Parts: sequence; C-alpha cells; structure tokens
Amino acid sequence: MLALRCSAGQLILDPGAPLPPNSGEALVRITLAGICNTDLEILRGYMDFAGVLGHEFVGIVEYSPSGQLNGRRVVGEINANCAVCATCRAGHPTHCPHRTTLGIAGRDGAHAEYLRLPERNLHIVPDSVPDEAAVFTEPLAAALEIFDRIAIRPTDRVALLGDGKLGLLVAQVLALTGCDLLLLGHHREKLQLAAGRGIATRLLASSGDAPPPASFDVVVECTGHPGGFASARRLVRPRGTLVLKSTFHADLTLNMSQIVVDEITLIGSRCGPFSPALRLLAAGRVDVQPLIDSCFPLKQGVEAYARAAERGTLKVLLRP
Amino acid sequence: MLALRCSAGQLILDPGAPLPPNSGEALVRITLAGICNTDLEILRGYMDFAGVLGHEFVGIVEYSPSGQLNGRRVVGEINANCAVCATCRAGHPTHCPHRTTLGIAGRDGAHAEYLRLPERNLHIVPDSVPDEAAVFTEPLAAALEIFDRIAIRPTDRVALLGDGKLGLLVAQVLALTGCDLLLLGHHREKLQLAAGRGIATRLLASSGDAPPPASFDVVVECTGHPGGFASARRLVRPRGTLVLKSTFHADLTLNMSQIVVDEITLIGSRCGPFSPALRLLAAGRVDVQPLIDSCFPLKQGVEAYARAAERGTLKVLLRP
Repeated sequence: MLALRCSAGQLILDPGAPLPPNSGEALVRITLAGICNTDLEILRGYMDFAGVLGHEFVGIVEYSPSGQLNGRRVVGEINANCAVCATCRAGHPTHCPHRTTLGIAGRDGAHAEYLRLPERNLHIVPDSVPDEAAVFTEPLAAALEIFDRIAIRPTDRVALLGDGKLGLLVAQVLALTGCDLLLLGHHREKLQLAAGRGIATRLLASSGDAPPPASFDVVVECTGHPGGFASARRLVRPRGTLVLKSTFHADLTLNMSQIVVDEITLIGSRCGPFSPALRLLAAGRVDVQPLIDSCFPLKQGVEAYARAAERGTLKVLLRP
Repeated sequence: MLALRCSAGQLILDPGAPLPPNSGEALVRITLAGICNTDLEILRGYMDFAGVLGHEFVGIVEYSPSGQLNGRRVVGEINANCAVCATCRAGHPTHCPHRTTLGIAGRDGAHAEYLRLPERNLHIVPDSVPDEAAVFTEPLAAALEIFDRIAIRPTDRVALLGDGKLGLLVAQVLALTGCDLLLLGHHREKLQLAAGRGIATRLLASSGDAPPPASFDVVVECTGHPGGFASARRLVRPRGTLVLKSTFHADLTLNMSQIVVDEITLIGSRCGPFSPALRLLAAGRVDVQPLIDSCFPLKQGVEAYARAAERGTLKVLLRP
C-alpha cells in the first residue's frame, strides 16, 4: 500500500509499504487523515519514532474481530493499551506503560491506505458528521481533555495563547463553558475565525498588545513553540492555573522559584475523550470546516507536509 | 541595634543598625530567630534583597498600635499586604502585588534585636509552646500550605524528597493525613529522626536506591536544589501531582513535553497558615526539638550563617 514514513527524520513516500499484518486487531481503510503539529515535531526528532506517520483519521472498517464494526465508518483513539495493568485498571488507559500510540510510538499510523487498531479503540461516526469534520475528532478530544484536568467556570478569566489549528479548537470548547475568554494570537485571519463564533480575540502585533501581567485565572498554552510558556506564565495570576497543550521537541529553561512563589498550578493535558467530541461535532457546537487549509491526495503527501509546515497553515488533509 | 544585613551578597554584622522607624506598625523585640535556606539563597542573589535578613522569629511585642498585644509573646506572618487590592480581597493576601516580605523583599527582617510588622500579622503564642518550638511556626505553616493547594488522602502513595529541615517538617504534616508516605534522603541521621516518628524512610546512598519510576501519586520536592526536580518528576505517576516547595536562585532546564504527555499536575506552594501551625505545636502533633542543630548569640551571626551553610546542617537559631 501507499504510506508516508518517517525514517531517520526524513519523510518518505513509500508506494510498496506492506499492509499492516493481521494482529487480531481491526483493519481500517482510511478515507481521510489530518496532519498534526505533532507529526511535524516527530520529523524533527520528537519521540524518536520511525514508521508510518499520522494519528488523525476517519475510515471504513474492513475487518473487525467481533464482526460488529464491519463496514462501519469510524474514528479511533490512538493509544492501544493493555487493559490489565494497574494504570489501565486505575482509569488511566491512555497512560498505560505498555501502550503503543498510532503514528507516534511503536505503531504505524494513519498516513497510509490502511491501519490497524484494537476494536475497542474505534468509535462509529454519526451519519450527520461528514469525513471532513470527523477527521477532527482526535484533536477535538484533545481539546476537551482540558476539562478532565481542570474545572473551568463562567466566573473564570481565561486567556488562550495560540491561534493555530489546536488553539482554534480549544477556543471553541472553552467558549462552551461561558468563561470570560480572550484568544491571543499573531494571525489576523485566524483570529477572525474565532471572532466569527463570538469569541473575544486580540492580535499580538507588537509587544505592547499583550494584556497586563497576572490578569487571568487560567491560561491555556497552545502556541506549539517553547516561547509560549513564558508568555503564558506572565499572564497567569498568583494561585492561577496554567494548562499546557503544546508538545515540542525542545527543552525549556525556567525559573521554577517563580512557580513556587506565585503558587502557580501547572497542568499537562494530552489525549482526550472521543465520545463527547463526536457528540459536539454532530450537534454543530464546534465548527471545524473553516479550519481546513487544503486537502492533498496521499500520493502528494510530501507536498502536503511541506504545506503543513509553512508558518500559519491550518489543517492539511490527506486523502488516500 | 545589632542586626545581620545582606548587602551586595555579603553578610554583615552591623552593631549600629537603626531601630526600625515608627511606621505605625507593631514593634517586636526578638527573643529567638531561625536561619532558613531562603536566607542562604538570598545571599547568593535570590530576590535581589538588601537589608536585614531573617523571617523566622518569636518575640515580645513592645508596642502595638491597638495596645492589645503589648507585652505578648508572638510570631508573625511575613507578608505585609495592602488588604484592599483585588488580590487581597479575592482571598490571596500573601500574593498582594503591593506586599513587602520580612527579610526577603522591601522590609527589614528578624535577624536583629527588633522588627516591625503590621499588628494583624502577629499571632499570640500559647504558653505551652516554648520559644524553641514557636520559632518553627513560619516553616511549619509553609509545610501546611501544601494542604491548601492539594488534598492528600489516606489512599495516596506519597514520596517526599529531601530530609533537610523543611523536609522533616513536611514529613510530619504529611504523616498526619494517614497517606502511604516514604521520605527519601541522603542523610542517615536525619532520616532516623523521621523514622522515630513512625515515618517510612529510604536512604539514597546510590542511584540504585531510588524507588521505581512513576510509582507515586504525589511527590513533594523539598530538596532545595535544582537536581531535585528531575528526581521528583521521575517518581510521579502519569496524572499524578508534583508539589514544589524549594526555592533557589537558579534556572531549570526541563522537557515540558513530558509534563504534557504524562499529564502531570505541578503545584507551587509557599507561605502558609499560622493558626494551625501553632495549634499543632501546642498539641505536640509535630516535634521540632530534634530539628535544632545549634543556637548562636546574634553577635556571632556570621559564624551562625557559616554553620547553617554547611551541608547537612539542620536548624540554626539566633538569640539576640
């Protein structure tokens, strides 16, 4: 089959990739996939991954061990867990120490014609949700994970840093809470997408545009680059909460004493729940259509990645 | 009066320091003071402070504006706040942006014969608590602050890193919760102090002595040096909580993606509540007597600081 591989930091279009071997897992024929910043970070060395890239997809089940999902249109949770270890049984299956993760760790991904995942990872997509929306289920679930980590209330002043594709999803789910939300970013046209949904935005064209220090109860960092942390840190009030969503292949140098002196709570947040993501997409509570930059055939995958890596690009899709 | 000053990173014994000027605040004649790691860090440049050092003390009120505390034996909260700003009114007076902090920021401290603090900062010491215990009220309150930031339950596996004077206080208050506590340190004789209180301990004599990675729900970092963070990070389970108590004059280089991927909660914790600290001291629920290394007359303050800076030294006291 056709697949996009990461090999020693190089992106390779492989027309002769083997079909995923029969492992007793479900086989999914991919109909649409998305390129995430994490895929670009993997090519820069993040996670030391070698294999087929990609973890955002929608597809048709060609084989399901139980037979129940055959022919169904599905999306899939990306962490394949053991279900029996202490971490899984304690209710943290996405943190299973034995897990593999689709296109990220120990498991070939979705930028290919087929993938395999455990049947229990798959979720049927409601008929009312087109492929072009369903392909956002995984990042939308990641946005929703914030609420599994912290309660955000209508009384909270919340700043969201980053108007990229993840930021624009997070903005929409934060807005659902009724909190006093301000989205901060560097791209006028992206901020306008959020403003069109009634979200307050501010363009950071010069350093004087930043809000006053310590003026937010909660700050969510979605910039995807190391400099975002310092900006987020600056905006959160003493005893406030800083939510980290970005992952990147770089270390940060921090003055931890500031975290202690200001008694900041710092929360890491990663993969999230698929069911509410699908429900919100079906209900039209989150609008993902404007987040699509372009769609490339899989055989032009190298060009698609180049487009995704350009500064300011929103979601690039791949169609096998 | 006699006072110990920090001036351009130098410790100076000043026999001709002026009495704290009459500012309308209470005047306290200090009877006993403690040297904290923060004092040593200030001499290394932390907080850019110049003035009389010291923030742990017990003393007799020589003048109180209301007259109600005259002649009473007191300890004092170290942050002098404005009481009227939004931060104070929101219930975070220790974070008042207009605050001064005794011997740390904008206010002369307790390593002197006299100090001034607002009357509302002072707490009467129960007669049953001797000076040698009352002088620990401030660090004990800082230990108790952990519970204002996170609930620790009997079902939690908790690791405490650091068997220094703060660590040994934190160990005792963590033990009050009934949690499954393990104190980790490098000093056999200090660990024995905790073991004598029924606290499980482990001597980290070689790297093989560390518990398995990700084996604790909560890890409290009290080592007082930058390397402690990486050890603490290693021990906390995914979705666990890392409490930071150490302040030091150094930056840390971190891989923040690990915080995101493992969805760690990182909590900074600083000054805490004095009333429960005094209550626990009066009830004998926390034993501070074994934490005293030595007591120097204030006029031998330079020697006292030298002793406090020796590796492995517990609490050094100063008697004016």
